Amino acid sequence: MSKEITARSQDYSQWYNDLIIKGELADYSAVRGCMVIKPYGFTLWENMRDQLDRMFKATGHVNAYFPLFVPKSLFEAEEKNAEGFAKECAIVTHYRLKSDPEHKGKLIVDPEAKLEEELVVRPTSEAIIWNTYKTWIQSYRDLPILVNQWANVVRWEMRTRLFLRTAEFLWQEGHTAHSTSEEAVEETVKMLNVYAEFVENWMALPVVKGIKTPNERFAGAVDTYCIEALMQDGKALQAGTSHFLGQNFAKAFNVQFLNKDNKLEYVWATSWGVSTRLIGALVMAHSDDEGLVLPPKIAPLQVVIIPIYKGDEQKVLIDVKVKELIRELKDKGVSVKYDDNDNSRPGWKFAEYEKKGVPIRIAIGARDIANNTVEVARRDTREKQTMPMDNLSDQITGLLDQIQQEMYNRAKKYQEEHITPANNWDEFVKLLDEKGGFVSAHWDGTDETELQIKELTKATIRCIPLEGIEEEGKCILTGKPSRKRVLFAQAY
Amino acid sequence: MSKEITARSQDYSQWYNDLIIKGELADYSAVRGCMVIKPYGFTLWENMRDQLDRMFKATGHVNAYFPLFVPKSLFEAEEKNAEGFAKECAIVTHYRLKSDPEHKGKLIVDPEAKLEEELVVRPTSEAIIWNTYKTWIQSYRDLPILVNQWANVVRWEMRTRLFLRTAEFLWQEGHTAHSTSEEAVEETVKMLNVYAEFVENWMALPVVKGIKTPNERFAGAVDTYCIEALMQDGKALQAGTSHFLGQNFAKAFNVQFLNKDNKLEYVWATSWGVSTRLIGALVMAHSDDEGLVLPPKIAPLQVVIIPIYKGDEQKVLIDVKVKELIRELKDKGVSVKYDDNDNSRPGWKFAEYEKKGVPIRIAIGARDIANNTVEVARRDTREKQTMPMDNLSDQITGLLDQIQQEMYNRAKKYQEEHITPANNWDEFVKLLDEKGGFVSAHWDGTDETELQIKELTKATIRCIPLEGIEEEGKCILTGKPSRKRVLFAQAY
Repeated sequence: MSKEITARSQDYSQWYNDLIIKGELADYSAVRGCMVIKPYGFTLWENMRDQLDRMFKATGHVNAYFPLFVPKSLFEAEEKNAEGFAKECAIVTHYRLKSDPEHKGKLIVDPEAKLEEELVVRPTSEAIIWNTYKTWIQSYRDLPILVNQWANVVRWEMRTRLFLRTAEFLWQEGHTAHSTSEEAVEETVKMLNVYAEFVENWMALPVVKGIKTPNERFAGAVDTYCIEALMQDGKALQAGTSHFLGQNFAKAFNVQFLNKDNKLEYVWATSWGVSTRLIGALVMAHSDDEGLVLPPKIAPLQVVIIPIYKGDEQKVLIDVKVKELIRELKDKGVSVKYDDNDNSRPGWKFAEYEKKGVPIRIAIGARDIANNTVEVARRDTREKQTMPMDNLSDQITGLLDQIQQEMYNRAKKYQEEHITPANNWDEFVKLLDEKGGFVSAHWDGTDETELQIKELTKATIRCIPLEGIEEEGKCILTGKPSRKRVLFAQAY
Repeated sequence: MSKEITARSQDYSQWYNDLIIKGELADYSAVRGCMVIKPYGFTLWENMRDQLDRMFKATGHVNAYFPLFVPKSLFEAEEKNAEGFAKECAIVTHYRLKSDPEHKGKLIVDPEAKLEEELVVRPTSEAIIWNTYKTWIQSYRDLPILVNQWANVVRWEMRTRLFLRTAEFLWQEGHTAHSTSEEAVEETVKMLNVYAEFVENWMALPVVKGIKTPNERFAGAVDTYCIEALMQDGKALQAGTSHFLGQNFAKAFNVQFLNKDNKLEYVWATSWGVSTRLIGALVMAHSDDEGLVLPPKIAPLQVVIIPIYKGDEQKVLIDVKVKELIRELKDKGVSVKYDDNDNSRPGWKFAEYEKKGVPIRIAIGARDIANNTVEVARRDTREKQTMPMDNLSDQITGLLDQIQQEMYNRAKKYQEEHITPANNWDEFVKLLDEKGGFVSAHWDGTDETELQIKELTKATIRCIPLEGIEEEGKCILTGKPSRKRVLFAQAY
């Protein structure tokens, strides 16, 4: 076990922080609640972002960019949305600093540079975007608008955690406009499916697709669709949301269009987003006590090669073989690094790359050269095997695919084992206490019951699963009739 | 001439705004000085950004992300830098809104949510980054650090112009750390060359490389290197800067490293950036009175195909041919759109795509089908030619290359014709008044003279060219001795 990383069993929360910091994904910063995403972590984000971006474009979306600031009068226009975010907004009130007359070399806010209207640093962009769409939309011919934005947003959280909950975070927010309710709902579901496909196929993390209860809805939405994933401690994590906004924002910003019958109608809207929070989910779902375990398809580095040698003569022989292997791997699109830095020993390097979750480590020594072999170690299972050099690059790409698939299979098995039905209150409480995961139970459909269950168990309704079965039953708390099970869990 | 676009000769400034708005690159927003980058403009930015990113990575750089906010106490640590930006900073002072007790549905800033220390929205990130590097750097083994960040920054400008000067803009900022002054200077020059290569080879815009005078230096730099381009009105535009920061930030943030002799030294720094301002330069350098003219290598759309037909029968024949052509072009990596929207006439479409600067337009009608030809129109020269369908995709890719090259050649010729030597004051003033462009003249090396010339002529020293020839001469204003000519121009 790595001495630097706290064991999961000892302190799960510290384990998570250690993975992020020691795995060099991110660092704390001098700004309360904000983090620095380090190059290794940012490359991971780039890989995720680029794949999502390809999927958005393949489904007909284009990117644009809207202002960071939202004038207060626009921000408050959609009341529910404003109310939902008002308590966590960073506010710009001034536009100039000046020299502090009392402390040489120091600056103070210039009281004469007070803004007439305060600016909200965007916590989400519906307001500024729908105020813009008003000028883009006149007739049904201008619809649909299928726009996405990659941006930073700020939500002033009181309790922050690296990646999972930071005051500033990076995300994408899609904002689409449609001429019918049906088309907008279809878009909402389509993007939920894009998210699910990405998280499952690229992050190797199975999800449950569902709808949020009214109580857990996005502020200003008619319906919030979500994907929910399970972490190793049995808690759930909301990995992405897709909102059907109805005509709420169109009405708040007076965005109407002339339909085919030449009549004015309000425009239908969706918005959908995932953020750097996904990295938190990725880390918690797959990693172990030695460090990060990253799925090959998005790992910043897929293969590391470490030479083991005595003296220059052995090194030269190894270098020749490695050079050829690297060329072959790069030709196949594999990212690979040869770490022949002689300041550190192989054992130290092994631990280092395990900590950083590099999917495959290849070690090559003098005996390997003699035998025409290498030692290949998988990060996920930590299994080692000797492989012949011939056709090695094909073996490696095959192994990368296999790792990706097996990581998903293990996570899927874990998920399946952790969706448990409960049919009475005692069972329900016991499952949440002792086993964790999703507990599938009947609920009477009221806010009141939902909040009471949360108070009693800390569990929330993660979603009403899209693929749930209609079934007569009784609410786990009140015994009132219910027609569908929902998924409860304690959550991040 | 397009009715929608003001002629250059009539009102150059309005012409520029018309190109941006009517060409659908960007829009004004509800936030003072901030713009909305529309999908077409953002695709252009993506093409530019992606190529720059490849060039940064090819030169060994990695991306990272640092906080949007800079605590005031960090911001003021490097005094010259702080002084340079203090007058244009957006300041966050509060972190919460609350309901306005006097106006239902309205929000006010919660006076109880005042920050202990104000946060500056980054106008540039040296302060927050060097405060972070302090924790990353202990020994020479930790150097160099070659990090870049793509981000939004805010500078509260009083007079704003779309792309050229906006309160918020998108950019990249490289921040590197080195163990020697020589290595840092080498990095500064290397990135200047990367910028020059990008602007010349991708934006088809020739530049002059040079060094800024002390008076025009980046606040906190030891030396600012720059690339300067010429616009069609004879004004210069600074297209990118690369700064050698010496040990200024290392000293301000106490960033030291143990060198190979085990002695503590301050770290050497560079920073370098280009922004969405480049789009302003691109637009002004190449466009004409019909609209945008965009270089093929970065154009959001390279080829548009427009069918000209009567009745469905003709349309079907055209569709078949076009489908094949599109497949061939896409295989060759060409971006292409088939605009067969029957809501608008071909003539209207021609004007539309000319306005948007699409490099090649292909029109195909019934007669073309009979003759196995198409009509190909170049946006840059507006020349039309009939081309055989056979091998058409090869012809088109060849033509795209040719357009790219000829756009550069024309801009290069214009630049060469607009670098004019002046050997006395009258000549100097006359050139600036009547011809514009760069005026190459001797200067006595003092801030005083530079500022006096600016007052008299509005011209500034754009740079001391790197490739300038050593030559004895006399200052154009004071007659004092000088050993090298510098380039003066009125500038954006």
